[in-house]
Amino acid sequence: MTKGTQADVNPDLKKERLKCNFNIQEVTFIIDGGKDKTLQRKKIEDVALNIAASIDEVPEECLNLKERYDNAVRKSCVYSNIVKNELLEITGLEALGSPGLRRTADAFFKDVSPFMLHLGMFVPTIIGQCTPEQQAHWLPKALEMQIIGAYAQTELGHGTFIRGLETTATYDPATEEFVLHSPTLTSTKWWAGGLGNTANHCIVVAQLYTKGQCHGTHPFIVPIRDLDTHEPFPGVKVGDVGIRMGFNTADNGFLRFNQYRIPRENMMMKNAKVMKDGTYVKVARHEKLTYGTMVFVRVTLVMEAAFNLAKAATIAVRYSAVRRQSQPKPGEPEPQILDYPTQQHKLFICIATAHALQLTGLWLWRTFEAVLADMRKGDTDSLPELHALSSCLKAVSTSDSAALIEQCRFACGGHGYMLSSNLPLLYSFVTATRTYEGDYTVLLLQTARFLVKAWEQAESGKVLTPTVAYLACAAAKEKVVWSDSVDGMIRSFQAVAAGKIAACAENIKRLTKTGTSLEDAWQLSTVRLVAASEAHCRAMICQAYWHEVTRLTASCSASVKIVMEQLATLYLVYWALETTGDLLRYSTICESELNKLQLKYEELLALIRPNAVGLVDAFDFRDEILHSTLGAYDGRVYERLMEEALKSPLNETSVQSSFHKYIRPLAKGKL
Amino acid sequence: MTKGTQADVNPDLKKERLKCNFNIQEVTFIIDGGKDKTLQRKKIEDVALNIAASIDEVPEECLNLKERYDNAVRKSCVYSNIVKNELLEITGLEALGSPGLRRTADAFFKDVSPFMLHLGMFVPTIIGQCTPEQQAHWLPKALEMQIIGAYAQTELGHGTFIRGLETTATYDPATEEFVLHSPTLTSTKWWAGGLGNTANHCIVVAQLYTKGQCHGTHPFIVPIRDLDTHEPFPGVKVGDVGIRMGFNTADNGFLRFNQYRIPRENMMMKNAKVMKDGTYVKVARHEKLTYGTMVFVRVTLVMEAAFNLAKAATIAVRYSAVRRQSQPKPGEPEPQILDYPTQQHKLFICIATAHALQLTGLWLWRTFEAVLADMRKGDTDSLPELHALSSCLKAVSTSDSAALIEQCRFACGGHGYMLSSNLPLLYSFVTATRTYEGDYTVLLLQTARFLVKAWEQAESGKVLTPTVAYLACAAAKEKVVWSDSVDGMIRSFQAVAAGKIAACAENIKRLTKTGTSLEDAWQLSTVRLVAASEAHCRAMICQAYWHEVTRLTASCSASVKIVMEQLATLYLVYWALETTGDLLRYSTICESELNKLQLKYEELLALIRPNAVGLVDAFDFRDEILHSTLGAYDGRVYERLMEEALKSPLNETSVQSSFHKYIRPLAKGKL
Ligand SMILES: Cc1cc2nc3c(=O)[nH]c(=O)nc-3n(C[C@H](O)[C@H](O)[C@H](O)COP(=O)(O)OP(=O)(O)OC[C@H]3O[C@@H](n4cnc5c(N)ncnc54)[C@H](O)[C@@H]3O)c2cc1C
Ligand SMILES: Cc1cc2nc3c(=O)[nH]c(=O)nc-3n(C[C@H](O)[C@H](O)[C@H](O)COP(=O)(O)OP(=O)(O)OC[C@H]3O[C@@H](n4cnc5c(N)ncnc54)[C@H](O)[C@@H]3O)c2cc1C
Repeated sequence: MTKGTQADVNPDLKKERLKCNFNIQEVTFIIDGGKDKTLQRKKIEDVALNIAASIDEVPEECLNLKERYDNAVRKSCVYSNIVKNELLEITGLEALGSPGLRRTADAFFKDVSPFMLHLGMFVPTIIGQCTPEQQAHWLPKALEMQIIGAYAQTELGHGTFIRGLETTATYDPATEEFVLHSPTLTSTKWWAGGLGNTANHCIVVAQLYTKGQCHGTHPFIVPIRDLDTHEPFPGVKVGDVGIRMGFNTADNGFLRFNQYRIPRENMMMKNAKVMKDGTYVKVARHEKLTYGTMVFVRVTLVMEAAFNLAKAATIAVRYSAVRRQSQPKPGEPEPQILDYPTQQHKLFICIATAHALQLTGLWLWRTFEAVLADMRKGDTDSLPELHALSSCLKAVSTSDSAALIEQCRFACGGHGYMLSSNLPLLYSFVTATRTYEGDYTVLLLQTARFLVKAWEQAESGKVLTPTVAYLACAAAKEKVVWSDSVDGMIRSFQAVAAGKIAACAENIKRLTKTGTSLEDAWQLSTVRLVAASEAHCRAMICQAYWHEVTRLTASCSASVKIVMEQLATLYLVYWALETTGDLLRYSTICESELNKLQLKYEELLALIRPNAVGLVDAFDFRDEILHSTLGAYDGRVYERLMEEALKSPLNETSVQSSFHKYIRPLAKGKL
Repeated sequence: MTKGTQADVNPDLKKERLKCNFNIQEVTFIIDGGKDKTLQRKKIEDVALNIAASIDEVPEECLNLKERYDNAVRKSCVYSNIVKNELLEITGLEALGSPGLRRTADAFFKDVSPFMLHLGMFVPTIIGQCTPEQQAHWLPKALEMQIIGAYAQTELGHGTFIRGLETTATYDPATEEFVLHSPTLTSTKWWAGGLGNTANHCIVVAQLYTKGQCHGTHPFIVPIRDLDTHEPFPGVKVGDVGIRMGFNTADNGFLRFNQYRIPRENMMMKNAKVMKDGTYVKVARHEKLTYGTMVFVRVTLVMEAAFNLAKAATIAVRYSAVRRQSQPKPGEPEPQILDYPTQQHKLFICIATAHALQLTGLWLWRTFEAVLADMRKGDTDSLPELHALSSCLKAVSTSDSAALIEQCRFACGGHGYMLSSNLPLLYSFVTATRTYEGDYTVLLLQTARFLVKAWEQAESGKVLTPTVAYLACAAAKEKVVWSDSVDGMIRSFQAVAAGKIAACAENIKRLTKTGTSLEDAWQLSTVRLVAASEAHCRAMICQAYWHEVTRLTASCSASVKIVMEQLATLYLVYWALETTGDLLRYSTICESELNKLQLKYEELLALIRPNAVGLVDAFDFRDEILHSTLGAYDGRVYERLMEEALKSPLNETSVQSSFHKYIRPLAKGKL
């Protein structure tokens, strides 16, 4: 099932692997974040993937909704047992969110586990929002799977604007309880993963009322189903939200309360408390701390975007090495489609972007840990910058990754449209991450606020924080001198970002001067502000990516250094060519330099070509994790397509019942 | 179900409709191609949608594969009866592919009917490729649904490169039969819609062998299943290809032959014949005539892209009028998200693109009919130009439309991800049209061949055909003078296209001069050639769209003319801003003009805003055709989301069986 014997490998793939001129394992170590990480990951994979329970006899998409759900629960339970009984020994508790675990989960779940939010949001929120005593109460139960939780914030009527949530939690001092209530249809909780039929507990975000006063939204731990019978409690209406583009085994649910009571202790009280008598007490630094959790989740999503794009790139590159099509030279054999420059143009940027996002993610992670350490010392100054950075990185990485996964699918022609290629499911999963945990536009506008403020500081000569330090140079308002060296390109991208931010600030100034309110001026500039944020983010990724490549290949073999740098350069040149309009406006680049850049790009494609299969092999995905007929290590593409097709229930009988019921009567004119 | 009573309409939508300042019906007429077309369409809709059979009690996505298939067959049969018995009387035979029929079909099939290819490819191919005698034999049977056909060209191993097909049809003069055979796994026919379980006949494209010689690919009508029992004939292996991203009720199938015999008469003999003794006879103008069918199908796909994008725009714009979110001004109510300029930026280009593609499609249709008339007179000179044009239009329209449908989905936040919004299904359908009937890249490279040839003619001063006449001006190699008038913008887009084509031609020349073969030089230029083709296509769309708007609004009311022109201008300005790099290189546009253009764009968004709902109402989709909880005419968004959710089988019982089997044992540590 994994790499199989060399004998079975498609001869074209075999040749590709012989051509590869660098040490694949070295690149794997870099991508995993170090040799120790790779070894741990492989150990986890060996334990978890050594059992048959992860494999579906029939592809889960062939089942009906109930069967799919039940099958997903089955696998979730088996998987939870493996995690509890075997994996946590290897990794320790903090590794719950580790890439090693993340990867093995993907072998079990092509789509999403109904338990995902339990470990992904329920447990972390308990850690983040509960007092130590509350943690002592809830955490062991949650980790032992004695309770299963969901996280319900979004309502039918509100997602982005959390302050607008309508669910209320009103404190009743007589009984020392909170009364949860859903006053309107739009206040129905909607979307929470695991909530529909699985969870027996749920973190509910509601407007807190006590002593007749509203204190805004707060989280509560709410038991919703009987632990023994699993029946919803009276006053709780819970169910499935209906079918979705993806996430169809994630069990996204809705939830309504009718004057439903929970004990006072179920309010998560780390950041704010309600005393027995109903007095509300706020704990300091509430907001900045919540920032912290948000940043954590976003860093995870950046890595997730990289991870899934790497899968798509692996599938499409391997398939393109096996697929032969067309005859550009009469009489010669059909070339591997990987030999077409247009195909390389589609695919190599995907490999490079997976590297860029992964290394930027790891870098952000380290930065985040440093900020956390500062926070423990009481210093939260870097948090706004980190928040701004993580916002735009989350937005751009999920969006880029989704778009490029589609590009991988297109590159596989019709066969990419088969679900068994796994490309459609990868897309439907990643495109959702563009929306949840902060909508793309909304996040970029958050970053834009930070950028415009920073620009005003730059203009008034104040010291800038590291990620926006480049604004200082740009305040001089001269075009940056173009050069196609890596540094020159990064400086140009920064000049573009600075130029766009400055233009936004100017536009806002112009409008307010002529009598527009500041809010309206901001609104009227939002289309440009989004573009400015994107430019800032691109410059940041380019800088972080190159920085990390340099750092991480410092002690590598020469050939690894070369190929890693080729990819990173490709990324920079690609984005320069995508943004020629910006470069012409904010740098001195001229026609002949643009032509040179195009040639350089085409040269890089040719240079990377012989190492393409090696580069995707270096992502080191086991076949069980890729779930792809087109992308398996051995390249038995056509055999797998056929094998997978034959599993369809529609191939069980040679004639379907609808023939007798409808088609024949129709043909005989007797319908 | 349709427009309902005004009383039920969401108050925000009601206000939007009062704000609309133009006559909606006039725009509907323009889009349908004339008042008579609108009336006919409405008549068809009234007849076909007046029956309950089109409505699914349970959303079809809740069923398992077999149930879905059987349900799709049921509806196809009912629908075929309506078409046969009622609609053809209204429309006559040539209206089989008319937009009126097309629309009503969408009320029956959210996804795709297993009969689609029967009417869409099987029947047209009989008309196009059979002799009159053959037509007399096959056509009545096919139209009466006594036989149901599929069209199987693509094989596991070959899609784009038809000459590479491996299925053989070898003539045996002894029995006057063709022997069909699939010599390899990769020769398995794959993808044909309706083939899996539905069709009893299939047009098979195979390599024709007679008298020991191969004459290339030819089409054959092949009976594959017994008309009475529906069992596949001995020697035929047929089945379902497995689950796809969309098209899951289209019944895409695979097909293999083992020395399977069909009568000589089943070769489609309009363009080539095999005589009884095995002599092969070719009929003149074979290739150009096949071009004709291809152009026809592509024009249809352009209209299809427009049609589906219009649906997505309708859904997203109406939802954005109903949805209120965030609070940009403290203390004020949450605005309709349609009031955010970023939202307008996402959506108005979708309305404009739907117009652009629809009107360009209608224009192409007229052009095509003129060429057909010429062809009947024996003049096929315009065919290569039309072919080049239809190739790039098919590529760009399907690609734009798919990308913008996704943009509509993103604009609806989380709820857009619900299948009940219908946006995911619209996407999965349209994105497939990017691949079938010619892959995006391959088609653009075909157009590029024509363009480079035309450029060489321009350089040598020869007369150019109309759609590339602009190359003559550009051969002078001067930057075009920018102006933001409509004409100025169109001229600039043409200059961009010409500049890019010229650069490609130059690059090819440079490479061949230094010893590269012409084929290799072409290959090495393909990334640029694709971009040049795109630029040509964009210029063509801009020109045709503006031309048609001017023509069609000449006798309209002033307000209709204004709003149609605003939209068309938006389209041009949008693409100017998307391609500033190109404009800076190939026109004289400067920084201040770019700023002016950005302002103009933002002004257009504000001008279109009050008419946005009116503009999507003008697409005149009945709710039954939109299939959308978010897009229905009355805007009862949240009610519908809830109603639809409650139909899920996962909401039938309050506890799923997997709880008892897995979750409780896990919680008790007993799994
Ligand atoms: C697969 C999936 C899983 C999910 N899981 C969970 C979960 O487990 N728990 C949970 O609580 N939630 C969950 N969600 C909900 C998710 O968090 C929300 O969908 C997300 O926050 C976006 O909010 P929304 O859907 O209300 O979009 P909206 O905020 O309504 O956005 C709609 C449109 O309005 C625009 N818009 C909104 N505000 C502004 C503004 N101020 N300026 C400019 N434009 C604006 C947006 O850009 C977008 O185009 C999930 C969603 C999905 C799709
Ligand atoms: C939903 C759906 C329905 C379909 N229905 C039918 C049907 O009813 N009947 C039927 O016969 N077929 C059908 N098809 C098949 C369809 O026609 C093919 O998928 C299509 O022709 C593309 O061919 P391919 O899949 O072999 O892609 P390939 O040709 O293998 O393309 C794969 C990649 O190689 C690239 N490539 C290929 N050649 C070149 C070149 N010369 N230069 C540069 N790049 C190149 C492409 O751009 C693409 O990136 C259907 C397909 C789909 C998805």
